[in-house]
Amino acid sequence: MTKPKVVLAYSGGLDTSISIKWIQEKYGYDVIALGIDVGEGKDLETIRQKALDVGAVKAIMIEGKELLADEYLLPALQANTLYEGKYPLSSALSRPLISKLLVEVAEQEGAVAVAHGCTGKGNDQVRFELSIQALNPELEVIAPVREWGMTRDEQIAYADEKGIPIPVNLENPFSIDANIWGRACEAGVLEDPWQEAPEAAYDWTNPVEETPDTPETIEIGFEEGKPVSFNGEAIGLVDLIEKLNDLGGEHGVGRIDHTENRLVGIKSREVYENPAAMILINAHKELEFLTLTREVAHYKPQVEQQLSQIVYDGLWYSPLRTALQAFIEDTQKFVTGTVKIKLFKGHHQVIGKHSPVSLYNEELSTYSKDDAFDHNAAVGFIKLWGLPTKVHADVHNKKKHLVTTNE
Amino acid sequence: MTKPKVVLAYSGGLDTSISIKWIQEKYGYDVIALGIDVGEGKDLETIRQKALDVGAVKAIMIEGKELLADEYLLPALQANTLYEGKYPLSSALSRPLISKLLVEVAEQEGAVAVAHGCTGKGNDQVRFELSIQALNPELEVIAPVREWGMTRDEQIAYADEKGIPIPVNLENPFSIDANIWGRACEAGVLEDPWQEAPEAAYDWTNPVEETPDTPETIEIGFEEGKPVSFNGEAIGLVDLIEKLNDLGGEHGVGRIDHTENRLVGIKSREVYENPAAMILINAHKELEFLTLTREVAHYKPQVEQQLSQIVYDGLWYSPLRTALQAFIEDTQKFVTGTVKIKLFKGHHQVIGKHSPVSLYNEELSTYSKDDAFDHNAAVGFIKLWGLPTKVHADVHNKKKHLVTTNE
Amino acid sequence: MTKPKVVLAYSGGLDTSISIKWIQEKYGYDVIALGIDVGEGKDLETIRQKALDVGAVKAIMIEGKELLADEYLLPALQANTLYEGKYPLSSALSRPLISKLLVEVAEQEGAVAVAHGCTGKGNDQVRFELSIQALNPELEVIAPVREWGMTRDEQIAYADEKGIPIPVNLENPFSIDANIWGRACEAGVLEDPWQEAPEAAYDWTNPVEETPDTPETIEIGFEEGKPVSFNGEAIGLVDLIEKLNDLGGEHGVGRIDHTENRLVGIKSREVYENPAAMILINAHKELEFLTLTREVAHYKPQVEQQLSQIVYDGLWYSPLRTALQAFIEDTQKFVTGTVKIKLFKGHHQVIGKHSPVSLYNEELSTYSKDDAFDHNAAVGFIKLWGLPTKVHADVHNKKKHLVTTNE
Amino acid sequence: MTKPKVVLAYSGGLDTSISIKWIQEKYGYDVIALGIDVGEGKDLETIRQKALDVGAVKAIMIEGKELLADEYLLPALQANTLYEGKYPLSSALSRPLISKLLVEVAEQEGAVAVAHGCTGKGNDQVRFELSIQALNPELEVIAPVREWGMTRDEQIAYADEKGIPIPVNLENPFSIDANIWGRACEAGVLEDPWQEAPEAAYDWTNPVEETPDTPETIEIGFEEGKPVSFNGEAIGLVDLIEKLNDLGGEHGVGRIDHTENRLVGIKSREVYENPAAMILINAHKELEFLTLTREVAHYKPQVEQQLSQIVYDGLWYSPLRTALQAFIEDTQKFVTGTVKIKLFKGHHQVIGKHSPVSLYNEELSTYSKDDAFDHNAAVGFIKLWGLPTKVHADVHNKKKHLVTTNE
Repeated sequence: MTKPKVVLAYSGGLDTSISIKWIQEKYGYDVIALGIDVGEGKDLETIRQKALDVGAVKAIMIEGKELLADEYLLPALQANTLYEGKYPLSSALSRPLISKLLVEVAEQEGAVAVAHGCTGKGNDQVRFELSIQALNPELEVIAPVREWGMTRDEQIAYADEKGIPIPVNLENPFSIDANIWGRACEAGVLEDPWQEAPEAAYDWTNPVEETPDTPETIEIGFEEGKPVSFNGEAIGLVDLIEKLNDLGGEHGVGRIDHTENRLVGIKSREVYENPAAMILINAHKELEFLTLTREVAHYKPQVEQQLSQIVYDGLWYSPLRTALQAFIEDTQKFVTGTVKIKLFKGHHQVIGKHSPVSLYNEELSTYSKDDAFDHNAAVGFIKLWGLPTKVHADVHNKKKHLVTTNE
Repeated sequence: MTKPKVVLAYSGGLDTSISIKWIQEKYGYDVIALGIDVGEGKDLETIRQKALDVGAVKAIMIEGKELLADEYLLPALQANTLYEGKYPLSSALSRPLISKLLVEVAEQEGAVAVAHGCTGKGNDQVRFELSIQALNPELEVIAPVREWGMTRDEQIAYADEKGIPIPVNLENPFSIDANIWGRACEAGVLEDPWQEAPEAAYDWTNPVEETPDTPETIEIGFEEGKPVSFNGEAIGLVDLIEKLNDLGGEHGVGRIDHTENRLVGIKSREVYENPAAMILINAHKELEFLTLTREVAHYKPQVEQQLSQIVYDGLWYSPLRTALQAFIEDTQKFVTGTVKIKLFKGHHQVIGKHSPVSLYNEELSTYSKDDAFDHNAAVGFIKLWGLPTKVHADVHNKKKHLVTTNE
Repeated sequence: MTKPKVVLAYSGGLDTSISIKWIQEKYGYDVIALGIDVGEGKDLETIRQKALDVGAVKAIMIEGKELLADEYLLPALQANTLYEGKYPLSSALSRPLISKLLVEVAEQEGAVAVAHGCTGKGNDQVRFELSIQALNPELEVIAPVREWGMTRDEQIAYADEKGIPIPVNLENPFSIDANIWGRACEAGVLEDPWQEAPEAAYDWTNPVEETPDTPETIEIGFEEGKPVSFNGEAIGLVDLIEKLNDLGGEHGVGRIDHTENRLVGIKSREVYENPAAMILINAHKELEFLTLTREVAHYKPQVEQQLSQIVYDGLWYSPLRTALQAFIEDTQKFVTGTVKIKLFKGHHQVIGKHSPVSLYNEELSTYSKDDAFDHNAAVGFIKLWGLPTKVHADVHNKKKHLVTTNE
Repeated sequence: MTKPKVVLAYSGGLDTSISIKWIQEKYGYDVIALGIDVGEGKDLETIRQKALDVGAVKAIMIEGKELLADEYLLPALQANTLYEGKYPLSSALSRPLISKLLVEVAEQEGAVAVAHGCTGKGNDQVRFELSIQALNPELEVIAPVREWGMTRDEQIAYADEKGIPIPVNLENPFSIDANIWGRACEAGVLEDPWQEAPEAAYDWTNPVEETPDTPETIEIGFEEGKPVSFNGEAIGLVDLIEKLNDLGGEHGVGRIDHTENRLVGIKSREVYENPAAMILINAHKELEFLTLTREVAHYKPQVEQQLSQIVYDGLWYSPLRTALQAFIEDTQKFVTGTVKIKLFKGHHQVIGKHSPVSLYNEELSTYSKDDAFDHNAAVGFIKLWGLPTKVHADVHNKKKHLVTTNE
């Protein structure tokens, strides 16, 4: 008789390796390991082999960077999503993709369950489980690490007993997650917010002290809100992101140190490195300042904040996300042009921008003699713009006066 | 018979000097010049003498930095006000103070009017006129520069004719405004957004290339949202701001290059230098991340954005401002603690923070064995948090299924 | 030599009749009168003849109700647009349509200008001029009533002199505007907000005192946010609106008395009658409560409020409107179902609703023994949902305790 | 040895009566019953006796209507709080008061725990537990009904066995909660949203069919946002609310039928009766339209919506509530005046309003010859207000034109 099958999101690390064995024993399921390359720099072939060695009945490896960039990162970029104004949601954006692939593979393989390696105090468990539920509410979800309640030492003993190889970097004090949109690092000494994050917490970026003494100026071209060229040459989104991670990292760009509010109710100190994400979001925002009308420029940040919030909170596959994204997409049809960026000493400053549909109108803005602005219009404008405040002042000053007189 | 009197906001520059004569001729009023030091680095005594030389019947000089800091900058800091996420409103915050002093002096001197030197295409005319109207709706407002319609050459000819001294730096291509909260620079070559802002546009800050190679670490202490100490020593707000402008300027901190949406409907390229403002806002924000609950942390930015907008739009003396400020003040009673900042190569990074009322709880956040967080609670939380999305998915997946079956 | 042409939005009333002559005299233009039926109950043929009689060189009549319903009212309904929570924007929604037709006719006829009959203190002038400007920024806009500065008596004298017929109902103390989405009435005795609006201010609706003593129950079916059936029979949108205006009016439904904040800065007392609009908006909202997820239900009102604001403020043809509408449209794909409404004594109460994609799940909601809800999940949910508040309480209670102890 | 004590919120109903016994048996605690009169119409002396009869070691009865009105209902009224635009939060507002009294009594009596009678699928459990936690995080919270898992039949058997009297109205199909701010009714036939709510679901209000045929006009006076007089006579808040419940109920005012989104993730059909709440909120809103500036009038609803949300969600004692309330309170200092209301056939229409600080300015608004509004100011206003849209249209029309030309 065949056993039920579960598809496990498999990273090759200790937790998910133990999970293969643990699910087999605890649930009696056959485990299919699913490895996905989203740009954390691991070799899929090694991961596949390890999964099979540890006991997976099957190991499926998927190249996910293009999917991640096109379907998750681009909408996020167009919305300039930064959770709490700081964190570009790099891990949060990969969870819905991984969930979708888990569900698709589970459906193809006839599995009854999917499994992820998250603990019970992070945001990622929420993101996985809400995404899976939304895509296929009938799949069982198993969260071995949250369920087993083993300490680190018990895990190592379990791994020893089951013949699961223990990684050499187990003593790494940090917990790391990465994809092409960024790298997150938490735990260890970072748990004291008075301590400066140590250099060991960073991996993708140079400290400012060690960056080149010569700035590098680059140009990124956007078409309808999508970055499409680098220094004048057409480029794919994944390639552009990887290039900007390299260049930005070299110049110390994209370090973020954040004490953030998790969905599960606690504050948590996180150190992020997001060179490409920060360069692209900033460039995109600056181009928007040139091409969006004031009304759109002032309302869009509210939509952006809401979208950032729900992506952080695991609601990617909820109807609110598609509606917010429809708003964002409609605004992007005007966001075309080129942005010139100077990478230097940790900065990624936009030093120039132009657009065939720029709304900056030099004839209106200039203080030179070519001024086309109607100065007299301001008089009427001020009168009506200030009228509600003036009427309020009239009424309340008069009242004050009456009170004074009467006394 | 005595002439009616007007109080003119007098800077000592060419425009307001011409205004003294022009108002006398055009309106037949006696002009009282009012000079206010808000930290732009001018000598009040020189200004007083110049006003009298040009023809003012009286010149009143007021030291305004303390007033500015206590009544306008501190509330702005507590609201982290940044117009369009970028501009700390330095000029915008001085306008209501200057207006208030204009009105107070006008009332003391029995003047029938006040006057300001703004053109017809900027935001400042709106800020002045709305403020004056709100404080004393019966005062006439005169805006000579907007009214006279003279070109630069005609102004110079007029000054020559009337014996008004022409400043030596008249060829300065930029238009400048400054106070302790920052310096604004516009016009000239800046009017082309593709051109990098030239070094000549900056005055308070070093370019990153010329900053010290050694970082400087400072500590700022806050009590209930107000910065009160520097490196452990008590300090007044004006002194702190001036010190941070110096230190920040040396390290290249606080340069902002913005294509902003003006209230009068145009986009305008502005270059700002706000070392103290940017250091303080960032430090304050980071302390808030440590001390405000998630719910406050997520709602306050909306109030901040609204307050920034109305201050920019000249509505300081409208009832909406006091209501927004009441919200902000209520949140500040928890914002106490110390922030450690590293000034280096244009950065003002917060590298540590602590608070006697920190809501960061290491026992809840830790991944070490002292973990006090209830991992099982997450299961129930996820179930209810995701329930609306799950029900939606159930309904719409079932419907899809039915459709498929029927076909 | 031919004269330049202007297209005038012509209602057949005194103001626009005078405008024909006045523009000819003042501007020397040939006037093309454009009459549009948006449902105010005037006969287009009569209007055409009157325009020609008064001196128009051409009179073009357009049936506009379908256009109005499909392109302006339906998006407004889907967004439940109510300005300040009360006014369904009936006049505000017809202005962009009329402007669009003015521009199209002007372009077809080779006119250099368009003209409207608004005064200088209302919202409609803004709506017309912004719309026209957005659609064809090169057309001149003439606003005779705003420009001529004639008193009522001077207008009558002018009309007499020019042989323009004076309407018999000139003594009507109210100013009226109407289309199928509603009727607006202002001025006269309404200008005193302490006075109850007199019956004479109403025309479409019975006072509650005179409504039938028997309720009428109707059913409206929606498909993807569009009302498509009445009592089970398919119906076009214009027909449905007209039917609901009749039925609702009979039952006294849709009277609104509002002291509203105009864009031009004043407060204004308006009396509206919007039977169909209010019935449809309420029915649509109630169906949304059944079919939208909580997250969408809680965010959509913010988008609705913003859309209402910009439509009121004349920004229909601005890019913000299309982006907000994209959000709304995305939400509507789930709004399918039937709503049962009881019309009675001024009420239009929704007494039942069902939907094939209802998210109301009786098994989850019931208190009967079929309950499918997991009661234990609440424990974990409450723990994490309340955690930020609990940590805050812990910290500040402990601090209070310490302070007390120390003293 | 004395047993630990628990304070139980005791209503006299079956659930909380069983809870007395059940807690004694399950936890071994002595139960102190706390009965609070918030206006649901029960006799405190009867409740006290019943508690002691069933086995409470002590029964404490508190008159809570004044506290409820002053500290919870008034702030809610000033914020016009309506959850999802419909529900005046009547039950939600009593929970924080009851929680506060539970905590105070527990502290006075030296109890280690408090207990409430909520199930696991409602909002009230969340409101109780978050409030208790915020006020005294060290108190244990017991929720017998959520914990015991008994069916209705098992409860009756348990009550029989323990000698707990079974109420005669046990067959009431509805679940009811009430206080002076309103009455809530759910369950039974209401669980089918297609069914009209039966008359049996209502208790406080007449159906429109049975209301008087003569309207009743009343006047309510407000001072700084607080209702202080009825028909010209000073009146306390509790008395006013009770009077309006009677009068409104007679005229059929205040019935609400809502399919609402619960915090615990489900949709639920609720029938509410809130005569006083709806009359007061509407009157207060209408007075605000007369006395608040446009800017406040347009922003306050966002604060109101947020406050409604967090009160519904149990966050009364969170710092966000006090900050939002600080905003609201600041706006109320202008909300003074009198509102005239017509109660008739289920309507509570405001038919007149006046204020000594009304911002409605007849001279500005009038269309009569006393018009004080500057019509020419509109020209300048429109120019600048529409400038961003015009520039956008210029740029994109030109671009379209170029594209057309090139093809």
